[in-house]
Amino acid sequence: MKPIKVGLLGLGTVGTGVVRIVEGHQEDLISQVGSPVVIERIAVRTLDKQRNIDIASSKLTEDPWDVIDDPEIDVIVEVMGGIEPTKTYILEALERGKHIVTANKDLMALYGSEILAKAKYKRCDVFYEASVAGGIPIIRTLVEGFSSDRIMKIMGIVNGTTNYILSKMSQEGASYDDVLQEAQALGYAESDPTADVEGLDAARKMAILGTIGFRTNVGLDDVSVRGISSVSKEDIMYAKRLGYEMKLLGIAEYQDNEFNISVEPTMVKEDHPIASVNGVYNAVYVYGEAVGETMFYGAGAGEMPTATSIVADLVTVIKNIKLGINGLRELVSYTDSKVKQDENVFCKNFLLLQVEDKAGVLAQITQIFAEYQVSLESVLQTPDKHSKDVEIIIITHNASKASMNQVLSHFETLSAVRRIKSVYRVES
Amino acid sequence: MKPIKVGLLGLGTVGTGVVRIVEGHQEDLISQVGSPVVIERIAVRTLDKQRNIDIASSKLTEDPWDVIDDPEIDVIVEVMGGIEPTKTYILEALERGKHIVTANKDLMALYGSEILAKAKYKRCDVFYEASVAGGIPIIRTLVEGFSSDRIMKIMGIVNGTTNYILSKMSQEGASYDDVLQEAQALGYAESDPTADVEGLDAARKMAILGTIGFRTNVGLDDVSVRGISSVSKEDIMYAKRLGYEMKLLGIAEYQDNEFNISVEPTMVKEDHPIASVNGVYNAVYVYGEAVGETMFYGAGAGEMPTATSIVADLVTVIKNIKLGINGLRELVSYTDSKVKQDENVFCKNFLLLQVEDKAGVLAQITQIFAEYQVSLESVLQTPDKHSKDVEIIIITHNASKASMNQVLSHFETLSAVRRIKSVYRVES
Repeated sequence: MKPIKVGLLGLGTVGTGVVRIVEGHQEDLISQVGSPVVIERIAVRTLDKQRNIDIASSKLTEDPWDVIDDPEIDVIVEVMGGIEPTKTYILEALERGKHIVTANKDLMALYGSEILAKAKYKRCDVFYEASVAGGIPIIRTLVEGFSSDRIMKIMGIVNGTTNYILSKMSQEGASYDDVLQEAQALGYAESDPTADVEGLDAARKMAILGTIGFRTNVGLDDVSVRGISSVSKEDIMYAKRLGYEMKLLGIAEYQDNEFNISVEPTMVKEDHPIASVNGVYNAVYVYGEAVGETMFYGAGAGEMPTATSIVADLVTVIKNIKLGINGLRELVSYTDSKVKQDENVFCKNFLLLQVEDKAGVLAQITQIFAEYQVSLESVLQTPDKHSKDVEIIIITHNASKASMNQVLSHFETLSAVRRIKSVYRVES
Repeated sequence: MKPIKVGLLGLGTVGTGVVRIVEGHQEDLISQVGSPVVIERIAVRTLDKQRNIDIASSKLTEDPWDVIDDPEIDVIVEVMGGIEPTKTYILEALERGKHIVTANKDLMALYGSEILAKAKYKRCDVFYEASVAGGIPIIRTLVEGFSSDRIMKIMGIVNGTTNYILSKMSQEGASYDDVLQEAQALGYAESDPTADVEGLDAARKMAILGTIGFRTNVGLDDVSVRGISSVSKEDIMYAKRLGYEMKLLGIAEYQDNEFNISVEPTMVKEDHPIASVNGVYNAVYVYGEAVGETMFYGAGAGEMPTATSIVADLVTVIKNIKLGINGLRELVSYTDSKVKQDENVFCKNFLLLQVEDKAGVLAQITQIFAEYQVSLESVLQTPDKHSKDVEIIIITHNASKASMNQVLSHFETLSAVRRIKSVYRVES
């Protein structure tokens, strides 16, 4: 049994988990792929680091090319992250006929099609299950489990940091700033949390899920993004009072060769399965034309869950090596699709307006909705605790994004509307 | 592009769904497998039936052997159900080198190893995703998604009928008999509901999930089964009051080459992800050593969800035909495992006792638990509304099944214990 030799680029948290699983589950792996799996070489940033795993120092190198150029190595697991030089390393490894398993969502969201094209040309595998939703095998599910269906909608809680923050705000009535500080202290949020809280991380994952689910090329630019930094305690309080939970949702919809994908704080009806996904957990809800509603739930990050997905991909690559079918998985041909115009993107909306307390204002406001053909599901007027104004809370029926933008622009010209305090998408 | 020819055994609800997807999604299928997929022949019980799908009568036959013997047919989809003659048909089709896709949980639970051995010998594929949890691709997830992990626990709501009944009882405070009648009227329960309500259907599915998840051969006899027909309104009311939902759970646990699998009504803590799965939906919760908690949710039955899984299997078989790798998917070697002894099966328990209202009874009862080393999480004594007795509600800490059986036997000898009204497993 000639062993399969694996090279690792990076030995951070996830890389350490990969070594742990490959070494700890060696017998299970042999029984599945028919030969030992050996981590042959590992490129690290510095050799002088204290590590909480026992690795022969002869396996470590500071030069990634020692791994990429090693003719003994069959598969490279990339867990160093970032765009460059990582992209160059991966393309050069493919050039040398090595298969790739990566957890790099940034790279796959931005350069996935270039990398996959190169892989196809070189008859190599590139798998990246761990790039979205950590331990949840969602890419496999979309590619294989639902191969016979047409995916109409994907909604994902795909960023654990923001879900932790919003869950805490909802459960404890705490403010965004307080919870963010706490999350940073606990290591759930980075010291610069921008990529998470502004929705960029989620957008990259949604671009990957949209590409795979809709079998079309979704660019990162195609995803409209809004983060959670402006979500207030008050917004969450109103949401709960109306029976909703606030979640940072990636929402991807597809119909007739047109798609729209957004990441935005969304009010989700509390009986929706995704509404009760709390803390750092991730979940992906998939609506298929034939299968209907499904949801997949699990840890979205962390050493061992992410490593599980990476080693599962590694098992697939090694089975493919044994079967001689690398580079053939993607028999799916992608179709060309367009991003939907705002006129054709429909959703329900929540609005919180601060308006002057005088006769006829509510009539004036509802008249403007009517003017742009936006019909209303519910309207509630309450006194504003902090001023002499009143607050108006509105939930619309399905309305086009274009109409809603017209309504909002119109409100900005009205002196009676002091402030558009909040606008959120609503999912029932 | 030579078309791939498919034979169908059966044209009931699910068979009709398969024809709908294969015909309706023909372009998508061609783009995935590189050639047309044609339903060539269909064996039906009688030709003279009114069908709500348009099929050329030349494709229909009352003789299954017309399908099995047709040399043009590459793959047989079995959706006729039952054990015999279905098993003979499948084995004979394999003998003729045909690949099989089946939704037949009864057959796979009882004769899966025989059928898979024959398939391996003939280098044929046998896929059966649709046999468990309809549209949820759970078999694929266990085999491939978690190939690198060790599955420690699988908990499933895998029978929609019983979940519908228990959800209704919980939501409406209705009795078992009333809800069963309603479910029968709506077509959610059969006129003879025994296989569903007594847990046999769920047991078959758990035997399949245990076999695949633990990579060992689980027989139907290895599954201990208890149905829901004795679950009372009162039980559910007590469960809710304590913060639990009553669910018919299949629970499979594995450790050190020993497993235990049961199907039984279980009180699930309301914040557990599986507690909020209601109605005819199914869900499978999987705990992996590395990946931690995951859950997969979706429609457990129905024409289109089940057909989705079948056609996804069909796509895999056809890809394998193109790649020349049929019969090689199961590289996993199975280990020999034993069923755990009752001494080693641990869980929390709920007990509802009706006892005589006299001094010292509670002390006597708690003393018996202590005698068998069962420690208690909570004890509540309330007057019994219907008699002069009192009711004692106990939730234990983790206790072995053997100890619990000793406690219960002991209670039966005590005159002060009028009746052991209910005993349920508890999952937190």
